[in-house]
Amino acid sequence: MGRWEPNARERLERAALALFVERGYDATTVAEIADRAGLTKSTFFRHFADKREVLFGGQDRLTERFTRAIATAPATATTVDCLGAALAAAAVAFTAERRDLAPQRRAVIAAHSELQERELLKRARLAGAMADALIARGTDEVSARLAAEVGVLAFGAAHARWAVPDNERSFTEIAHAALRDLQARASTLGAGAAESPAAESPLDVRALPGSGFTMDP
Amino acid sequence: MGRWEPNARERLERAALALFVERGYDATTVAEIADRAGLTKSTFFRHFADKREVLFGGQDRLTERFTRAIATAPATATTVDCLGAALAAAAVAFTAERRDLAPQRRAVIAAHSELQERELLKRARLAGAMADALIARGTDEVSARLAAEVGVLAFGAAHARWAVPDNERSFTEIAHAALRDLQARASTLGAGAAESPAAESPLDVRALPGSGFTMDP
Repeated sequence: MGRWEPNARERLERAALALFVERGYDATTVAEIADRAGLTKSTFFRHFADKREVLFGGQDRLTERFTRAIATAPATATTVDCLGAALAAAAVAFTAERRDLAPQRRAVIAAHSELQERELLKRARLAGAMADALIARGTDEVSARLAAEVGVLAFGAAHARWAVPDNERSFTEIAHAALRDLQARASTLGAGAAESPAAESPLDVRALPGSGFTMDP
Repeated sequence: MGRWEPNARERLERAALALFVERGYDATTVAEIADRAGLTKSTFFRHFADKREVLFGGQDRLTERFTRAIATAPATATTVDCLGAALAAAAVAFTAERRDLAPQRRAVIAAHSELQERELLKRARLAGAMADALIARGTDEVSARLAAEVGVLAFGAAHARWAVPDNERSFTEIAHAALRDLQARASTLGAGAAESPAAESPLDVRALPGSGFTMDP
């Protein structure tokens, strides 16, 4: 065991993301990450199982925060109240000091199909865990799964809005606004026409930036 | 190229699912599947790239049917109309004659974590493709993603209800009812209390059957 390094986890995370952006994810080694951070490989492995965990390790803790907030919400809380509590509980991971990391992480994942799959899977698992936490409160399964998808969409929209460089609002404020927005859209689903068929085929549109999982504002 | 075998694809599919259930997915070989179906390995490989495609090959065609139906819906169609058209277009894959295959496929996937991941990923991609098709019609991104999740939830609920042994209703009828149900739930999201916190922890609930992606009625 090496000596305690102040702020080692974040230093490693910043070094890894910078290298992933510069050289590509596959071409970056753990040794290079540790070196860039001024730390040792063994310090890296005390914080992360592998370099992929730099990108996805936080999401397990995020899922835990979401589900605990839902489980411990007051008995009188509505489903949407539970989602709001979950989003507020997640905010601890999205402080102003960490905002500059978000676009880097997004760019690294967008450039790598295997990482995109991992991101989709993490998102699906987050929705599943939130639904299970709602079901544990007595919400029926269909409503719980619908609410969980709304919660994950609100989270995605909020994260994208929070991460823009000139944003000055807190994650919680943005997330609660996104949740209210989605709730309003859900309440009028199917009320408006889905516009006219576009000139481009859906296949063309799928190739456009921003048409992946992450939702830009 | 061997001679044309009547109904070869479905014979192979039935043989594969029966063997997956009997012996497990990993222990079943393509040679055994072909043998059980009374066909050759080369016939198998004319229909499926590998044994995993027996389980998931149909979902690519399903995604194509969903997105084409959304793209070609009338200009006056609402978002929910588009989802209804997508579900109706999918019904061709869910005929009464194929209903007995659904519980087998579900059981095989439920018993295998890698296949569960593949199923989650396919579901996420289906939602993404439906959202892209709605965006191509002019629906804004957030509304399109919300509607696509509702469509995928309706599909999952409908598939589970359609697959029960004593069901006599058509897939389209069940799917349209599921869509109306989800639309109604979406419109009142957050109106009711999410019940009181349950005695069990969310972790206990996650281990219960039926708490995975598939939604049983």
